[in-house]
Amino acid sequence: MKTDCHGGNIYKKAKELGISQDRIMDFSANISPLGIPEEIRQTVIASIDDMINYPDPECTRLREAIAENDRVREEWITCGNGGADLLFRLAFGMKPKKVLLPVPAFVEYEEALRTAGADITYYRMDEDLLPKEDLIPEITGEYDMLILCNPNNPTGLLLDRDYLLRVLDKAKKEGVFLLLDECFLEICREEENLTLKPYLGKYDNLIILKSFTKLYALPGIRLGYLLSSNPDVIEAVNRAGQSWSVSNLAQEAGICALSLKDYKERVIDTVARELAFMKNEMASLPIRLYDGKANYLFFRAPGREDLDRELEQRGIMIRNCSNYVNLGRDYWRVAVKDHTSNCQLIRALRNILPEN
Amino acid sequence: MKTDCHGGNIYKKAKELGISQDRIMDFSANISPLGIPEEIRQTVIASIDDMINYPDPECTRLREAIAENDRVREEWITCGNGGADLLFRLAFGMKPKKVLLPVPAFVEYEEALRTAGADITYYRMDEDLLPKEDLIPEITGEYDMLILCNPNNPTGLLLDRDYLLRVLDKAKKEGVFLLLDECFLEICREEENLTLKPYLGKYDNLIILKSFTKLYALPGIRLGYLLSSNPDVIEAVNRAGQSWSVSNLAQEAGICALSLKDYKERVIDTVARELAFMKNEMASLPIRLYDGKANYLFFRAPGREDLDRELEQRGIMIRNCSNYVNLGRDYWRVAVKDHTSNCQLIRALRNILPEN
Repeated sequence: MKTDCHGGNIYKKAKELGISQDRIMDFSANISPLGIPEEIRQTVIASIDDMINYPDPECTRLREAIAENDRVREEWITCGNGGADLLFRLAFGMKPKKVLLPVPAFVEYEEALRTAGADITYYRMDEDLLPKEDLIPEITGEYDMLILCNPNNPTGLLLDRDYLLRVLDKAKKEGVFLLLDECFLEICREEENLTLKPYLGKYDNLIILKSFTKLYALPGIRLGYLLSSNPDVIEAVNRAGQSWSVSNLAQEAGICALSLKDYKERVIDTVARELAFMKNEMASLPIRLYDGKANYLFFRAPGREDLDRELEQRGIMIRNCSNYVNLGRDYWRVAVKDHTSNCQLIRALRNILPEN
Repeated sequence: MKTDCHGGNIYKKAKELGISQDRIMDFSANISPLGIPEEIRQTVIASIDDMINYPDPECTRLREAIAENDRVREEWITCGNGGADLLFRLAFGMKPKKVLLPVPAFVEYEEALRTAGADITYYRMDEDLLPKEDLIPEITGEYDMLILCNPNNPTGLLLDRDYLLRVLDKAKKEGVFLLLDECFLEICREEENLTLKPYLGKYDNLIILKSFTKLYALPGIRLGYLLSSNPDVIEAVNRAGQSWSVSNLAQEAGICALSLKDYKERVIDTVARELAFMKNEMASLPIRLYDGKANYLFFRAPGREDLDRELEQRGIMIRNCSNYVNLGRDYWRVAVKDHTSNCQLIRALRNILPEN
């Protein structure tokens, strides 16, 4: 429990604006535009009576389902109370002393690592916000861990597999762990060709972070997992937290999610279509729009540091990115939502930002 | 997520015995014999759609409800993913170097503290398993923290307020935090006279751990909280974990629980009645029965290290206490359940243990 520095805090915003939470159109949190699958709703309802039992500490059935879905071994998986929980457990469990962090990056990495005593060195990306070849020589034995996010949060930019493998190779040679956050990757059409999951067996320095939050629209239930073929990593993460971190309801929701046949495809299709629509519509705005592939869009509106205030008056919440290292107050992130909502956002942006 | 060393793992036991979970009568986990209140079931079901939003990181409404119920200030409260989550956050956040721990004590204290690097000194209780006056001179400035549990887990024995206040005074004088686990206290008729909650304002070295697990039969949803008037403690605990540790459903369940009018009284009455019944029935067994006041009973069955195996054959799971420091393999803990179940347990014990 802590004071918020992320997107998605509709409670605080509603209170601030003196309106009901339902009246806020939240573009600050990036989740599936199709909402919670009905099957998951029904499964959670059907599991209500399980609340009377302690959760399975080993998440046995959930791990079986993940292993099959992700084509990894069960013993490579550990589950947590959302992806963010696993970041803290990883930080406290592995206690990396020196971490190399390309920025901008998800704020929680740094919070978790610093709290656990890590010293963080930034690799500052250029204005195109992509890590380049010059990252590779930076990966040396003086670091314990390197963190990358694919697609990046907040930019939505993808890293190709060839580049990632060269990074991973160098990291392995130098004895550095690569924590690769793939939490948003499954919403991208490109997942199959970009995920490093098939390389877990070969690289014991690879740690992949995954979550059920984005694809299945379940941020409120808290469910994520971490993959590594290195038993020391799994053991360290498990030790750095309680026995029952994943609620019964979350375990059941996850098992159900992985059994769904076409939901994922439908999300990917919808996001791809809406993403293309939004990029097209936003092209004429006086902003620098980054070519993100995730279910959110990132842009700079030069000199416009007040976009959130302006949009709030229209009941729309977006994410200011100034608390990401390496970004100014005029960088913004918006979710890709359903078509009607996206149209409303674009209309509002057109009203606020005079077109070119 | 980790391998289990506690009660309540019906998943593992069912698998081991090759039977369905429903066929296990679980006396190893201590929760309300009245089961989940219907109002909480309905509230969780009505909140299902909230899973689409991130939880309120500040647990605003839940903390308001706790503040009113416990007569404490909102800013003295931080909520977590079950009491055990808060133990780890407290350990990682406060990083106590030296901890004084009267044993036997709940296993998770030691796990959390050791993982966070603490050095633990045991105060070994005598065979009556009560801490005595000689604990007080042991509380010196060389320690950062002292842990007590009232009623004790696994013994169920209560500590009186006068004793606790003398411990707390000495701890304050020596600059030692007292972590007082009152997770089971609200099920005891004696709560009002024994809780140290009214002393939080006066003692900034007092930290009280609470949970919704036991009274409301909700181990599966994960909800606990920690109380301290010391802002540094609250801040340290909050920093040592993610922003969204308490799911939406858990927050709603907790708010509902605190609004219930007579459930708590009914649980207290039922437990008191069944506890008296069980003590009376078990008095003739060849065991040393401790005079616990909680919703569980603790006993030694001298030389009988196989009680769990014997009971398993009758579909009954109890808690062996040999993984508590200071206890041997012939110490056992059983929950106080509904009358029918309690009768079954007693019948089974009579069959296994020849009466005096």
